[in-house]
Parts: sequence; structure tokens; C-alpha cells
Amino acid sequence: MEQPIVSRLEPTQVSRAGVIGTGTIGGAWALHFLRMGMDVVAYDPGPDAQQNLLNMVEAIWPTMKELGLREGASPQRLSFANSMEALTQCVQVIQESTPENLTAKRKLFAELDSITPADVVIISSTSGFAMTDMQVDCLHHPERFVVGHPFNPPYLIPFCEVVGGKQTSPEAVDWTAAFYESIEKQVAKMDKELPGFIGNRLQEALWREALHMVANNECSVEDIDKSIAYGMGLRWAIMGHCLTYHLGGGQGGMAHLLDHFAPALKEPWTRLEAPELTPELRDAMVQGCLNQTEGRSINELVKERDDCLIRIINTLKEYKASHGIQR
Amino acid sequence: MEQPIVSRLEPTQVSRAGVIGTGTIGGAWALHFLRMGMDVVAYDPGPDAQQNLLNMVEAIWPTMKELGLREGASPQRLSFANSMEALTQCVQVIQESTPENLTAKRKLFAELDSITPADVVIISSTSGFAMTDMQVDCLHHPERFVVGHPFNPPYLIPFCEVVGGKQTSPEAVDWTAAFYESIEKQVAKMDKELPGFIGNRLQEALWREALHMVANNECSVEDIDKSIAYGMGLRWAIMGHCLTYHLGGGQGGMAHLLDHFAPALKEPWTRLEAPELTPELRDAMVQGCLNQTEGRSINELVKERDDCLIRIINTLKEYKASHGIQR
Repeated sequence: MEQPIVSRLEPTQVSRAGVIGTGTIGGAWALHFLRMGMDVVAYDPGPDAQQNLLNMVEAIWPTMKELGLREGASPQRLSFANSMEALTQCVQVIQESTPENLTAKRKLFAELDSITPADVVIISSTSGFAMTDMQVDCLHHPERFVVGHPFNPPYLIPFCEVVGGKQTSPEAVDWTAAFYESIEKQVAKMDKELPGFIGNRLQEALWREALHMVANNECSVEDIDKSIAYGMGLRWAIMGHCLTYHLGGGQGGMAHLLDHFAPALKEPWTRLEAPELTPELRDAMVQGCLNQTEGRSINELVKERDDCLIRIINTLKEYKASHGIQR
Repeated sequence: MEQPIVSRLEPTQVSRAGVIGTGTIGGAWALHFLRMGMDVVAYDPGPDAQQNLLNMVEAIWPTMKELGLREGASPQRLSFANSMEALTQCVQVIQESTPENLTAKRKLFAELDSITPADVVIISSTSGFAMTDMQVDCLHHPERFVVGHPFNPPYLIPFCEVVGGKQTSPEAVDWTAAFYESIEKQVAKMDKELPGFIGNRLQEALWREALHMVANNECSVEDIDKSIAYGMGLRWAIMGHCLTYHLGGGQGGMAHLLDHFAPALKEPWTRLEAPELTPELRDAMVQGCLNQTEGRSINELVKERDDCLIRIINTLKEYKASHGIQR
């Protein structure tokens, strides 16, 4: 194996991105890169892939304008490569979004590795596989392969998880995180590979509890969705669950909540067993909330939450009323 | 036990509500009832309770105006009873929001039952106790005691769970659900008592998975919150998790998602074991989603989600920018 390449383009200087696989996710990445004022070169061997992507860009470009275009952004800056090799020769970063098939990805990555200049970082949109397992057949520069997992639709949802495999260099992970942050993504950079990463682990826990409840005739699908869309979900658009609970603890915040409601952790309020609330875990939760407040008091955070809640509630109410939507 | 009283005021005719316990939750109920154009009579034996509630109403009334007042709504329509008995004699419904203490609630409910006219429904805001356990000492009309569990802050979050205990009459449960719906609440009416009801079960599963992840050093609190507030939470403000997945299944909706991604249910993507995906569960999930779509196609739902996402994202962006908030 050659030495890792660390001298590559600054992440903030990327102006030409390659997109391999142009389905729902790959197409959405193309749109996001275009909105950020970049050239995009796309490659997908599917028979109608080119026309489908053109249709998608045309359909969604008005949405991109509503969100705000970076200087120079234009759908005209999308082009198509006739071969994967052609694409690899003219881009500064590659976002791969082919179907979730480990064998196929291994083969694809080995090929990409052999034809792509060593200083080009290759990012995979996989939601299910560890980079360690996907990069095994990369014989040249496995260190530049990184997972960059988006949430649907990636042209709207800012959150991405960034994590490398055993052979990935920390520099490539840092580069990917910095690149994403430079194009308005909100990044969680992970130290270790974890099945489901972060977001999917959290929502999978909720999803499985929901399935259990329906399977046991405890409540309806509609009531589950109502509890989210008219309940917790309204708050979760504004602050994460931990910061929401920080406010739930009153003036004492997360510390008060954990110290006084710890016994509730043992209640049979979900089928998932709770961890032991050790002093270390307690302190980590408290500090993690304080890190996010940036000095804002509980009262300031409550006002912020309520101000934003009104705006979201009124926005959704107006939208639904003007579109004749009952729910 | 006397016969259940079924001839009470129509739920849509309530114009005078009693609020017992005027802390964060009880005070929020008072505000919501006032916004809905009702008279509110409050009782709380705490030394500063009256002044605290007046302060809260004054501080939050501008928010109520922003959400929109019903005809005749005024903070002047709040009054205070000198005794619990006085309150019970002049209201048409009672919302109880005293501290979460089962012994205290049992005693309070027994007393309330003995002094409150039989046709007045008494609703408890409890988040933790089953009505069956709270109504045991009610000797006169236990059938009119119902749980109506709100989400914080109840003057903003529409979702409420309504459920009775073993001695509660179905009529009282129906009455409470109809009363709440008449004052702009989104109600899940439950057939059986379930620890944590619906919303708290779902968010507790997510919360416990989050605690496990921090306890095992798998990710930071900040990354957990980022994945929600910049990821799933943005979607959950618009549609519940099931309907969100219905869109995730493409044109085939929830049916396609369950039929094709069932194996993912067995992945170690949370510490919570998944239930068996029986044909019955599969059909219940599919039908529950179709019930919610009201005939809208997947494409229409995707457009609705994206339209609302842009509005929420832009709304939050503007708010944060104008308040100098970084995160």
C-alpha cells in the first residue's frame, strides 16, 4: 500500500463534484452540489438515468431557488460522463450513491480506486454498510474512502454522518466533514463505525417500539403518527431530544432532570432496557447539553423554542389551509 | 356505586373550565382554555401560586395572540377560587395538574369526587399513572375520571392522549376526546392503559438508545441532537414516522418498504429487538398509512413534505439569523 495522500485540494475550494449513481439519493446530491454553485459530472449506466436526472433537476430547481442559490449556481452546470473513468479524471470529489449491495460496492470501489487520482476523496452515501467492509478490495488508496450518509431528501435535510473504515485515514474523514460543512451540511463526525450510524439507530428504536405497539394492538398507526407530527416532532424540528429534555428539567436543566427523574428510566415505558445511569453518563449528558446552549439560559431557550414553535405551527397551518389538507 | 351519568353538557358547549394545580402544566392549560375563549377558574394552595399564574399568563399572552384567539378570549376571564370546593361548584370540566405523586392524587381524586357535581368530567394531566390506580378511592362517580395527557408546552403542542381507567365509562372518555378536539387539540383516544401511553413510549425508546450510545462512547450528545434537529426532526414536524417511511418506500409506499426492507429490521441498528413482521402487522402498517393519506398520491405527499420542509428550514434560518443564534 502506498503512503496516504494528505496534500489535496482544500475542502472549501471544491468546485467540481462527481456523482456516481443518480437515483433518488445520487440525484439529490447532484441538486445540492448544483445549488452550492458547483459543476457536477454525473455517471449512471442505467438506460434512462440521464433523462431521469434531467427531469428531477428541472422539477426540483424551483425548490433550490426558494432555499437560496450560491453565486453562479445553475442547472446548466450539470454534465454527464460517458464512462466512470472519464468522470474520475475531471472531478475533485466523488459522491457514490449506487444501490445497497455489498458485493457490488466492493467491486465498484476496487475499480474506482484503481482509476481515480489518489488525491480525490471518494464518499459513499451508504446507509447500511461499514466502510471497512466496502474498501477491502481497494489496493491503491483505500485511505481516501469515507462514508458520508445523508438523510432523505439530501437536497433539503442538512444532517450527514461522516465516518471512515479501518483503512481510511483520519485526514480523509476530516476533509469530508470540512467539505460538507462548507456546503451547508450539518455534520456528525464519528470516531468508530456503528451499525445504523447515529440517526438511523435513534429512529430505528422509535420505529421498532411503534411496530411492537401495533403488533400488540396497543394503539393505531394513525395515533403513532399523530403523537409525532402534532407532538414531539414539532419540538424536534427546533432542538434535539437531549436539549428538549434540558428545557424539561426547568431551571436545573438536564442535571435536574437526570437527578430527579432517574427512577423513571426503569419504568416499562418502552421495551428497550435503559442503561445504568452512572455518574459518568449523567455528567456526559449534562455537559453535552451545556455545550450546545452557548451560554443561553433556560429561559432564553424556552423563549426560542416557543417562538419557533409558533412559527412552525402557523406555517404548517397556513400551508395545509391553502392546500385543502385536513390532517 | 351510582349509575354512570351520561347526560352532561355537550363537549362543544363548555365555556367554563376549572384548573387544579397551576404549575408549568396547569398554567399552560389555563392559557390554552383562555385562548379558546373560555372562563377559567384556578385553584392551587401554593403560597405564590396566584401571582405566578398571573405572571405566566401576562408573559405568554402575546404568544396566544400570535397563534390566534377565539372570539371573546381574554386573560381577564381568569379567576381564582378560594377553595377547591368553590371551584368545583362553578365549572363544567376540571383539568387536574398537581405534582406526580400517586398517594396524593388518590386522596385528591377521592375528595374531588365527593364534592364535584356528578356530571362534571375530571381530567388528569398525569404522564405517569394509570387512571385505574388513581381512581380507586373514588366512591361516588369514578366513571367520570379520565386521563388527558398533554405535551409540553400544552398551550402550543396540540397532541393529547385520552384514556380511562377500569372504572371510567366509555362515555366519559368519548366526552373528553370530543371536548379536546373542540378546542383544537389533536387527540389519540386509547382503548387500554399502557405505561407511557403512546408518545412517551416512542420518545423513551429513542432516549434510551441515545443514553446507551453516550454511555458506550459511541457518539456525542451534540451529534445525537444534530441528527434530530437537522435530520429526522425536520420531517417529523410535518408527518409522523410511519407516513415518512410510506414516502421512503417510493411509489409502492409502506407496502414496498416492508416487503423489501424487512430483513433490515433484524439488523443491529438499535438495542431494541424488532417484532416478527407477520402478515397481520404488515397489513396493519400499510392500512394505517393509507388511512392517513386521504387519497393523496406518493408524489403529492412528497411535494407536500418538501414544500413544508423548505418553509420550516427557511423559518428557522431567519429566526436564528435575526437572533444571532449559531446552531
